[in-house]
Amino acid sequence: MNESAGWWERACRSAWPIRFVDINLRGIGQVMFQDNPLSGLLFLLAIGWGSFAAGVAEVAIGGVLAVVVASLTALWLRVDSASLNAGLYGFNAFLVGIALATFLDVSSMLWAYIVLGGAGSVVITLATTRVMQTWGVSALTAPFVLTAWLLLLSSNGFSGVPAGALPTSGLIQPIAPEAADPLRILDFLEGLLISVSQVFVKGDGIAALLILIGLAVGSLAAAGYALAAALISVVLAHMLGAESQLITGGLVGFNPILTAIALGTVFYRPGLRSALYTLLATIVTVLVQGAMVAAVTPFAIPTLTAAFVLVTWLFLLARPPLLDE
Amino acid sequence: MNESAGWWERACRSAWPIRFVDINLRGIGQVMFQDNPLSGLLFLLAIGWGSFAAGVAEVAIGGVLAVVVASLTALWLRVDSASLNAGLYGFNAFLVGIALATFLDVSSMLWAYIVLGGAGSVVITLATTRVMQTWGVSALTAPFVLTAWLLLLSSNGFSGVPAGALPTSGLIQPIAPEAADPLRILDFLEGLLISVSQVFVKGDGIAALLILIGLAVGSLAAAGYALAAALISVVLAHMLGAESQLITGGLVGFNPILTAIALGTVFYRPGLRSALYTLLATIVTVLVQGAMVAAVTPFAIPTLTAAFVLVTWLFLLARPPLLDE
Amino acid sequence: MNESAGWWERACRSAWPIRFVDINLRGIGQVMFQDNPLSGLLFLLAIGWGSFAAGVAEVAIGGVLAVVVASLTALWLRVDSASLNAGLYGFNAFLVGIALATFLDVSSMLWAYIVLGGAGSVVITLATTRVMQTWGVSALTAPFVLTAWLLLLSSNGFSGVPAGALPTSGLIQPIAPEAADPLRILDFLEGLLISVSQVFVKGDGIAALLILIGLAVGSLAAAGYALAAALISVVLAHMLGAESQLITGGLVGFNPILTAIALGTVFYRPGLRSALYTLLATIVTVLVQGAMVAAVTPFAIPTLTAAFVLVTWLFLLARPPLLDE
Repeated sequence: MNESAGWWERACRSAWPIRFVDINLRGIGQVMFQDNPLSGLLFLLAIGWGSFAAGVAEVAIGGVLAVVVASLTALWLRVDSASLNAGLYGFNAFLVGIALATFLDVSSMLWAYIVLGGAGSVVITLATTRVMQTWGVSALTAPFVLTAWLLLLSSNGFSGVPAGALPTSGLIQPIAPEAADPLRILDFLEGLLISVSQVFVKGDGIAALLILIGLAVGSLAAAGYALAAALISVVLAHMLGAESQLITGGLVGFNPILTAIALGTVFYRPGLRSALYTLLATIVTVLVQGAMVAAVTPFAIPTLTAAFVLVTWLFLLARPPLLDE
Repeated sequence: MNESAGWWERACRSAWPIRFVDINLRGIGQVMFQDNPLSGLLFLLAIGWGSFAAGVAEVAIGGVLAVVVASLTALWLRVDSASLNAGLYGFNAFLVGIALATFLDVSSMLWAYIVLGGAGSVVITLATTRVMQTWGVSALTAPFVLTAWLLLLSSNGFSGVPAGALPTSGLIQPIAPEAADPLRILDFLEGLLISVSQVFVKGDGIAALLILIGLAVGSLAAAGYALAAALISVVLAHMLGAESQLITGGLVGFNPILTAIALGTVFYRPGLRSALYTLLATIVTVLVQGAMVAAVTPFAIPTLTAAFVLVTWLFLLARPPLLDE
Repeated sequence: MNESAGWWERACRSAWPIRFVDINLRGIGQVMFQDNPLSGLLFLLAIGWGSFAAGVAEVAIGGVLAVVVASLTALWLRVDSASLNAGLYGFNAFLVGIALATFLDVSSMLWAYIVLGGAGSVVITLATTRVMQTWGVSALTAPFVLTAWLLLLSSNGFSGVPAGALPTSGLIQPIAPEAADPLRILDFLEGLLISVSQVFVKGDGIAALLILIGLAVGSLAAAGYALAAALISVVLAHMLGAESQLITGGLVGFNPILTAIALGTVFYRPGLRSALYTLLATIVTVLVQGAMVAAVTPFAIPTLTAAFVLVTWLFLLARPPLLDE
């Protein structure tokens, strides 16, 4: 592995088209914090599989288009090359492309939106990074959430941008008790697995397996934290009486997975202390995801990864002395 | 008083369980900015009385449970001991416990929510403090508002967490003129008094008196500002044509009371200049509380102390040269 | 021009009432970034004409009252005199006065609201400026948007503050395709022109011409950017299928106009690079304005210049190295 990585790194240095591919693959890998082109390739294969299998090839194509536009925009704006080469200007764009192609109808305007979303996400990434580094905290996927929310909301005003897959605007209704069925063990495992693929706005078991492999390639600890967080989320949501369809659809687990990887393996020194702190944050993310579902109801937009961003920002900003010692 | 305080301080130093009690009482006292265990004890008696008299003992118990969990969490996270000993990690948790027990139904999940809310409020307090100290401004009760809003919102998604006392989600309706009755003098005095207890999410006259005594024990000026702000709020709201039920229920006065204590006695040098500035802020808080009631209508959550936090933050961030001279 | 300006400047220095008039005129000029009393005078004439012609004199009077109250408040608070003399404490107040008089019914409470809004906008300007200068970014019209939103929202709670011209609270509805008619060339030109006057919450062609002259007096480049942005907005909104009535009413263009002037002529060195960057931001503002219209629907408030503030803040915070070289 190290040897092949060395070979790839030399190829990147010798030919800029390969470097450009590398930047984009790392961008995709960074969706789950992996600065690793092989992780990115496996994530891309997962999304490709999930999209083509479901007959929505535009989703994978939209993701690739957005990340390429973002890389070109970042080059134009002369961003710092270390961050660029690590894929930090690509992951938000990739998610924007996927989300727009998922929730907007296919039309010529969709592609214009994806190009604009890819370029705009770079500006928003620069802005968010500048603000948050005041406290030494990363932008995470906040640029994705903000860009996608704004573009999806704007579709309501433009008849040329139909959005058939968006939820409709409504008042908040407390869940009906009968929506919380007893889960069978297969549903349970399905929910656990699909939570992983919902990080990329996809509910697909094979995609989830490819993503897990990509994650393990980059970091075994990250894969472990992801599975543990998915397990905790599905069990906790079931205990709290969440809607069964949300659980089996993987929609309660994808935010806690990202929280767990970020706090447990990326931003704090791994160990028992950060593991306990991450456990608390993971549980909080399950509840905050429930809160987000309610909060976006009047706005007719999906929650995306807002719960992950909010909780992880709070738990990073807190930076308790316990974890600095 | 000084002598008894000295005796208590010695007891705190000699035995850690007494110190722990002291931290929690000061935490309760800090809800109204009093770093004083006797104030905290009187506030606690007020909430205890109000809860038991109304047959909702869970409210007082919830508050105590949350503040104790918060103190233990703060110890675990090794927060700075000066802030800890001053009760600064407790007051948000106390309010979270009270609010959750007021708006959620009693169930095993309620207690789990209170424990989680108490622990989570410490993390959010650390995060908010870190961000706001960039501009030399306190977190105030923002951690309470954020924690309680998220947990209350999340209840909509979980059938195991019924919340019968929450308002229902609706569209904003301008007040009907007939809802603004002429106030009789007794209603007027009732509204004035109960505003004080609504700081702790309680509408109870005896509780309000106990709170006022606790406030006066800590700071006579604070008690004076509180009464003046309550008077201004009730008169102003009546002149503006607010709903009479809100006025007599103390719901227009509790935010301005907190604004007045904070700006008039805690964060700016007391005097005529800061008094005039505080008067402006108090009036603004009455209007912003009206705005908050409208803004939260679609989300089916109470306003809590959001108006106080927003206005006081703005008036602290402004830090006009007039008040620095 | 230079000579007359020199004469005026001497008059300001010799007599404080003239200086006070100068401060207020510059405050009005700063709505479109012109630190120029003649620009302010022409803007004031435009609003005066638009208001009297439409039989709503209270709008112009409200604007003047608010800006005068703001100047007095700023003097009382002893703000820094350089900013004060440049009109930076006046433009948000002027817009607050106009907006309150436009959306609230005429009553004694309206004038109280305008006085309070004028004074409050100074505090909010100080607060916003303090926070944003952490990253070297201006407050823009954020204080106007925040002050006006809070006061307009609060009217729902007070029967003494009727607001007949506010929209009603509703759920978000995607635009019906038939609302996007083919635009005729005259409608097109009308939309282009009126976009300029909508910066001051007014739809009036003659007012727009006076504003354009005032803008050109201060900066020819600003007038050019304003017209280009209006053109781009109207064409883009039409291509996207926006509601025809919004386009001809100038409601898609006023935010992009402000974005273009700010980024193209005020905060970045003018040139091809900043022009391209400004073009991207202008296009994004058209879409974000669409998003804002949807986002405020449940709250029954107008979008005001929120889209301009959000997009321009993001494009300023990003500060790409490309524009620093």
